[in-house]
Amino acid sequence: MSSERLIYLPLGGAGEIGMNAYVYGYGKPDQERLIVVDLGVAFPDMDTTPGVDLIIADIDWLVQRKDRIEAVFVTHAHEDHVGGVAHTYDRLQAPIYARRFTANIAKRKMDEYAHPDDAIQVVGPWPHQVNAGPFKVGFQPISHSIPESSALVIDTPAGRIVHSGDFKVDLTPGVGEPFDASAFEEIAKDGIKALVCDSTNVFSPDAGRSEATLGPALEELVSGASGMIVATTFASNVARVKTLAVAGEKAGRSIVLLGRAMKRMVEASVEAGVLDSFPSVVSPEQARDIPRENLMLLVTGSQGERRAASAQLARGKYMGLELQEGDTFLFSSKTIPGNEKGVIGIINQLSEKGVDVVDDSSGKYHVSGHANRPDLETLHDIVKPQVLIPMHGEHRHLREHVKIAEGKGITGVLAVNGMMIDLSGNAPKVAEYVETGRTYLDGSVQVGALDGVIRDRIRMALNGHMTVTVLLDEDDEPLGDPWVDAMGLAETGSSKAALTEVVEHDLSQWLGRQKAKTLRDDDALNDGLKKAARQSAQNEIGKKPEVTVVVSRLS
Amino acid sequence: MSSERLIYLPLGGAGEIGMNAYVYGYGKPDQERLIVVDLGVAFPDMDTTPGVDLIIADIDWLVQRKDRIEAVFVTHAHEDHVGGVAHTYDRLQAPIYARRFTANIAKRKMDEYAHPDDAIQVVGPWPHQVNAGPFKVGFQPISHSIPESSALVIDTPAGRIVHSGDFKVDLTPGVGEPFDASAFEEIAKDGIKALVCDSTNVFSPDAGRSEATLGPALEELVSGASGMIVATTFASNVARVKTLAVAGEKAGRSIVLLGRAMKRMVEASVEAGVLDSFPSVVSPEQARDIPRENLMLLVTGSQGERRAASAQLARGKYMGLELQEGDTFLFSSKTIPGNEKGVIGIINQLSEKGVDVVDDSSGKYHVSGHANRPDLETLHDIVKPQVLIPMHGEHRHLREHVKIAEGKGITGVLAVNGMMIDLSGNAPKVAEYVETGRTYLDGSVQVGALDGVIRDRIRMALNGHMTVTVLLDEDDEPLGDPWVDAMGLAETGSSKAALTEVVEHDLSQWLGRQKAKTLRDDDALNDGLKKAARQSAQNEIGKKPEVTVVVSRLS
Repeated sequence: MSSERLIYLPLGGAGEIGMNAYVYGYGKPDQERLIVVDLGVAFPDMDTTPGVDLIIADIDWLVQRKDRIEAVFVTHAHEDHVGGVAHTYDRLQAPIYARRFTANIAKRKMDEYAHPDDAIQVVGPWPHQVNAGPFKVGFQPISHSIPESSALVIDTPAGRIVHSGDFKVDLTPGVGEPFDASAFEEIAKDGIKALVCDSTNVFSPDAGRSEATLGPALEELVSGASGMIVATTFASNVARVKTLAVAGEKAGRSIVLLGRAMKRMVEASVEAGVLDSFPSVVSPEQARDIPRENLMLLVTGSQGERRAASAQLARGKYMGLELQEGDTFLFSSKTIPGNEKGVIGIINQLSEKGVDVVDDSSGKYHVSGHANRPDLETLHDIVKPQVLIPMHGEHRHLREHVKIAEGKGITGVLAVNGMMIDLSGNAPKVAEYVETGRTYLDGSVQVGALDGVIRDRIRMALNGHMTVTVLLDEDDEPLGDPWVDAMGLAETGSSKAALTEVVEHDLSQWLGRQKAKTLRDDDALNDGLKKAARQSAQNEIGKKPEVTVVVSRLS
Repeated sequence: MSSERLIYLPLGGAGEIGMNAYVYGYGKPDQERLIVVDLGVAFPDMDTTPGVDLIIADIDWLVQRKDRIEAVFVTHAHEDHVGGVAHTYDRLQAPIYARRFTANIAKRKMDEYAHPDDAIQVVGPWPHQVNAGPFKVGFQPISHSIPESSALVIDTPAGRIVHSGDFKVDLTPGVGEPFDASAFEEIAKDGIKALVCDSTNVFSPDAGRSEATLGPALEELVSGASGMIVATTFASNVARVKTLAVAGEKAGRSIVLLGRAMKRMVEASVEAGVLDSFPSVVSPEQARDIPRENLMLLVTGSQGERRAASAQLARGKYMGLELQEGDTFLFSSKTIPGNEKGVIGIINQLSEKGVDVVDDSSGKYHVSGHANRPDLETLHDIVKPQVLIPMHGEHRHLREHVKIAEGKGITGVLAVNGMMIDLSGNAPKVAEYVETGRTYLDGSVQVGALDGVIRDRIRMALNGHMTVTVLLDEDDEPLGDPWVDAMGLAETGSSKAALTEVVEHDLSQWLGRQKAKTLRDDDALNDGLKKAARQSAQNEIGKKPEVTVVVSRLS
């Protein structure tokens, strides 16, 4: 009989930035009691996930072991950490623990799906601990860009783990608790088995800057501007929203919050009592009566999202407010890879209106919420773990982070999603490779990434779609010609006639050549018509469309 | 009777980077004789142009004035300047003038479409001039990143225009002629009516660096690497391909060219006699017998293109060559906005193989081929135009460039695609707004951007597709139930039954409620079934698909 072991298993977030979902287990092999850290989302894109609403980690592995899950712990309220709680609750039904502000945000999500009120439990900060089977878990405050961000202190019979969550080393973070080195020293004083650590900014070579350093530059920009000022950042960057609002207030401007997420996040922060001295805000209606040089709008859509406030203001009016020549638009944000075109599109629309755009290229109006390389090393050096497991990063980030650990003589483990690590012995080892993946929230249903649904949509986007309808009589003889409808295809091709007519003609000829056996066989007809239709389109327009064949029989 | 005028009309490239197509005209209004400068392409993306092969400017305005076109002049052989010549030749049928290397590339394109051999005329450099109606046009060599790049000197009865083409101020450009200030001084000595000027890098505040500055850093990198070196850049950046190859040769490595474009571009350069002392290359087959530390691969795919050599090497073997731990992969290139995800994907695949990736973040391994702000000012100051018209830029670039001109007391004109500028008088003025747009090469046919073809594909990608088939008998009574096929939609929704069955059931009920009048009316049936199918799917899976309705009648 094998002895008990301590395992670490990332289901999301290790090998990507987003969709965080980490599992820890303790017990005899395949009987471990489990806890989950974070259940986040990733965001879709047109290239790989058109039409998808959200992406969450495939939790099948957890669902199959549902009775062994003690609890879910959420480190902080960013979507890539908390966004999946409501979408997974039905299948996991485990209690969810979070600090007050995080719980407030999580509860709003749970309410949308009518999940029970007591599913989310509010926990105070370390040294308070939650008992979860063989684990005791505490929330140690750590600086990031949203209130009450926490590292988790996970005590196990095999030693103590520090799970950093998202963090930066910031002594004046604006919102949330400052980074407290002595608290981590105290936590680590009897030795740390493993530090599971944020890797986002491992390639940034210089020490990170504090949120507080932005204030003076922002105040100078705001007070020097002649027209209206609009500033955008992630609504969930509550620290930045406050920094911006305070800069606006100091310059004598009234603050307007635009965009649902912006209003909700400030509201939740105030409700949870974590946003002191936030300037008073005016409504868009009130703003219309205030001279534009006395206004500062804080708006959603820093990533160029088409339906967010930034994009709407760039296109025209939004909530009765409109930009004009002489106004200033500030991106107090970094553009996430993949969003560049959307952001540039907004900048050009603003340029057409004569609005001056200020972005982060000067480095003066944005700082990251994540630890840069020297700051990661600061945490390594305080915590002095036996093992460092990088998380929250793409493969290149994890690999670089392991290199840093090993340069310090710490054992580094490059564990990507699905790689179960046994941390029990002196040297960590791979215990198992678990099948992982992605689940798409698509409309109101969840579909698997490998179900083929999205693949078919991508194919229709690339190749267009054709519907072929054939009617056969009681004797399996074609009744009239095949009928072709096209969607997303050129109307005419090389022969200058309508594409659908050319294909109908070709299919009619094809049908005429078939023997009775084929005409009786739905599958053969389907395959044959599909192939003939694709070939006909290829000849005519140089594209092979996706084809739906409908065979109707009178028999 | 109105007098003659000089007009400038951008059809592409002004308000975007790519798809360059500029028109100049001289003559009485609406009788101007016309010349075209550049006929380039832009590249599609999944967000806005899924499945499209290339994008060219809508040339309808020119086609309608075909008999007034004297000639087309191509400044250099980059795709965004020359890529459209073969796709527009049938409709324009105007002679195309270019320098030898550019003509070589253009001819290869024309040959693919069997256009006549003499369509392209080779022209020597300035002071040679081509007579084109009221215009005399000369190719003044200017430094860029491809051989024989030229500014055009366009003499008109209303004065001389300098059309910069793409350029940088580089005295040691590697390939192509060095920037020659005195030549431009001589050209400008009697006054320049207008400078139509590249704006790509107007936001780059520091003076650009010469291609020659890369050599030492690249040689150090290459000689310091232990395994195989792979370097990628645009194949059409012939200067860089040479700089890289020379660095490899100096480090004692054999050079391998991978990717069709890479081989073709080097071949054309050698053929045109514009690539001196290019190191000898070995084939991929020969390379397999050479120790990897003695190899340097120059490969296509610097923008992460899925089918290019870089992506294939990142995924696995390509032409028998394979990367392994300890090899180095260099991006000697800048990632164009929109391509970040593809590039990052390759970097992560390389990370999984243990390959060290070097990118441009240090600034040591790439310089731009375009003039930065101080270099633009250098040209302004040499040419001293009466009017500056920025081109080759998005709106934000054009606007910034106009601001610079006006800061120097030069009249700046912000002319975007379709804005016809009358340059005849003392002050330039907008003569007319011309309808412009984009034409998509889609398979083997050209479709208009506003034809709805691509819009339908995007909708199918976002919403999925459903085919509804209904059969009606001679009395317009439904024969059996409606039949539903779905593509790109979840198989089951809220009721846990098959989506298609649920929708069939709902449509059957809908049909049962319709009066004879509706059942006789194809349009009413089509609209009603479409709406009912969309609503049924919305209830079931929270998505409204695109719907094709096929009504078959036995009558």
